[in-house]
Amino acid sequence: MVDLKAYLAVRRERINAALDAVWGENSPSTRLVSAMRYSLTAGGKRLRPILCLAAAEAVGGDSADALPAACALELIHTYSLIHDDLPAMDDDDLRRGKPTCHKAFDEATAVLAGDGLLTLAFQVLSESSSREAFRAEAWLRVIEEIARAAGYRGMIEGQMRDMDGETHGLGLKELEAMHRLKTGALIRAAVRSGAILGGGTEDRIDRLDRYGGSIGLAFQVTDDILNVEGDPSVMGKAAGTDATRSKNTYPALLGLEKSKAFAEHLIQEALGALAGFDQKSDPLRAVARYILDRRR
Amino acid sequence: MVDLKAYLAVRRERINAALDAVWGENSPSTRLVSAMRYSLTAGGKRLRPILCLAAAEAVGGDSADALPAACALELIHTYSLIHDDLPAMDDDDLRRGKPTCHKAFDEATAVLAGDGLLTLAFQVLSESSSREAFRAEAWLRVIEEIARAAGYRGMIEGQMRDMDGETHGLGLKELEAMHRLKTGALIRAAVRSGAILGGGTEDRIDRLDRYGGSIGLAFQVTDDILNVEGDPSVMGKAAGTDATRSKNTYPALLGLEKSKAFAEHLIQEALGALAGFDQKSDPLRAVARYILDRRR
Repeated sequence: MVDLKAYLAVRRERINAALDAVWGENSPSTRLVSAMRYSLTAGGKRLRPILCLAAAEAVGGDSADALPAACALELIHTYSLIHDDLPAMDDDDLRRGKPTCHKAFDEATAVLAGDGLLTLAFQVLSESSSREAFRAEAWLRVIEEIARAAGYRGMIEGQMRDMDGETHGLGLKELEAMHRLKTGALIRAAVRSGAILGGGTEDRIDRLDRYGGSIGLAFQVTDDILNVEGDPSVMGKAAGTDATRSKNTYPALLGLEKSKAFAEHLIQEALGALAGFDQKSDPLRAVARYILDRRR
Repeated sequence: MVDLKAYLAVRRERINAALDAVWGENSPSTRLVSAMRYSLTAGGKRLRPILCLAAAEAVGGDSADALPAACALELIHTYSLIHDDLPAMDDDDLRRGKPTCHKAFDEATAVLAGDGLLTLAFQVLSESSSREAFRAEAWLRVIEEIARAAGYRGMIEGQMRDMDGETHGLGLKELEAMHRLKTGALIRAAVRSGAILGGGTEDRIDRLDRYGGSIGLAFQVTDDILNVEGDPSVMGKAAGTDATRSKNTYPALLGLEKSKAFAEHLIQEALGALAGFDQKSDPLRAVARYILDRRR
C-alpha cells in the first residue's frame, strides 16, 4: 500500500520546485510575472502534474522525463482558473481563500496573466535544452494531445457549456458531457502525456486514458457532493453555494445517495482499467480511492 | 521586380485557404467556433504568415513546409487582437470597420475565443499528420520560438506596457521597447520560423531576424504617421484618433518629418540585412518598401 499523504506531499514539493525553475534566471520582476506567479503559487493540489508523473512510472518509465509536461499541465490549469474567475465569466472574488487574480491585480492584468501562463506552457513543452533528439516526436505528440485537450473541442468548450448551463439548465447527459470537456479532457491528457513520455505502449496509453476519464468525472461528482455535505472548515471554502446559485450538480439531478453510488462506480471503473498494471501503478490506484474518500 | 499587389493577393488567398482547412471535417458549429472564425475572417492583411512563407523561400526552401507555422502565427495575432479589444483592455467597439468580437458576441465568449485561437495555434504547430519524422526537431524549435515571442517576455509584456503607457506616458526609448515587444517579437518569430522550416543556416536566420526587427518597428512608425495624415476613406478607419486619446506615438515625440526619416532608416536597415540573399528574397524586399509607402 502507498502512504498517499506522504506521497502527495513529496510529489507536490517536486512539482513546485520544477514550476519555480520554469522562470529561469534573469526573470523580469514585472507586474505581469507577479500576477502569473501569484496565481501559480496560490496552493493548488497539483493533481494533473501528479497524475502525469505517476502515469509515466505506471508504464515503467522515469517520471523525470515527464516533468516538463507536468509543469505545462499545471500552467494551463492555472490559466483556466484565472480566466474562469473573471467578472465576465464566473465573477469570483476568492479562490482557495485568497483574492482571485483580477481582485489582487486588475482585470486587464488577469486576462494577460492567463494568456501568459497558457503560452508559457507550450514554451516549457518545446524547450529543447535538456532533451534528447530521439524524443522529439514524442514531445510533438504530447504538445498536440495537450493542445487538443485544452482547446475549443475540449476544456474551453466545457467552460462555454458550463456558463450556458447556468442560464439554461442542463440534463444529466449534458452535465456529464460538460464535465468531461471542462475538466476530464485535461486530466486524460495528463495521464496520456505521462504514459507517452514514459514509453508506454498504445494499449497502455488507452487504458490510462480510460482511468483518467473515470477519475476526472468522479472528481466532479465528489466535488458536488462535498458542496452539499462537506465541512467548510476542512475544505477551506463555503458549502451549500451550488444550491444557492442553483448550479447544475449531480446531487441536484440524482440525489445524494445515487450521486455517491455513481462516484463509487466510476472509481471501480478506473481501478478496472488498471488491471494488468503492476505495483508501479499503485499510486494511481491510491489517488482513485482518495478522490472517493476525500473531505476537501 | 515583384508585382507586390498581385503577389500579396495570391499569398493571402493561399493562407486563407489553409486557415479554413485548420478546422477540419466534422468541426462543431458551436458559438465558440463561430466567434473564433468571425475574428479570423475579419479581413486581416495576413502580414505575419506572408512573411513566414517568404522567409522560407528566401533561404531556398519550399513555402509549403512553413504553411502550418504561417497559420499558427495568424491564429496568435488574431487572439491578441480579440483580447486587446476587450472592455478591460483597450475597450474598442470596432476593428477593421466591423464590431469587435465581444461586441458581435459577448465578453465571456470573446475571452474564450481568444484562448481557443491561441491554443489552436499550438495544435496546428504540433499536428504530425503530414510531417516527416526527421523534421520533428525543427518543429519543436519553431514552437519554442513562437511561444517565447508571443509570451510574457514578448508580445504579452508589450501589451502590458502599452496599457501602462496610456496612463504614465512613455519616452522615445520606452516607446521603441514597447513596440519591439508588442508587435516586433511576433514578426521576428514569423521570419525566423519560415527560415528554420525552409532549412536556412543560422547566419541566414540571424539576418532575417534583423530584417524582421527593422520592418516590425517601421510598421509601427508608419502606422503612427498614417494616423496623423492618412486618408480615412483609404484606411477604412478614422485618422487623428491617437492625438485625441493622447497616445504615445512617434509623431508626438519626434515630429512628423523626423518620424518619416526614422521609418526610412529602418527600411534601409532591413534591406541591408538582406544583402547577400538572391532574387528569391525579392518579395521580402518588396514588402519592406511597401511598409514605407503604404497608404493604409
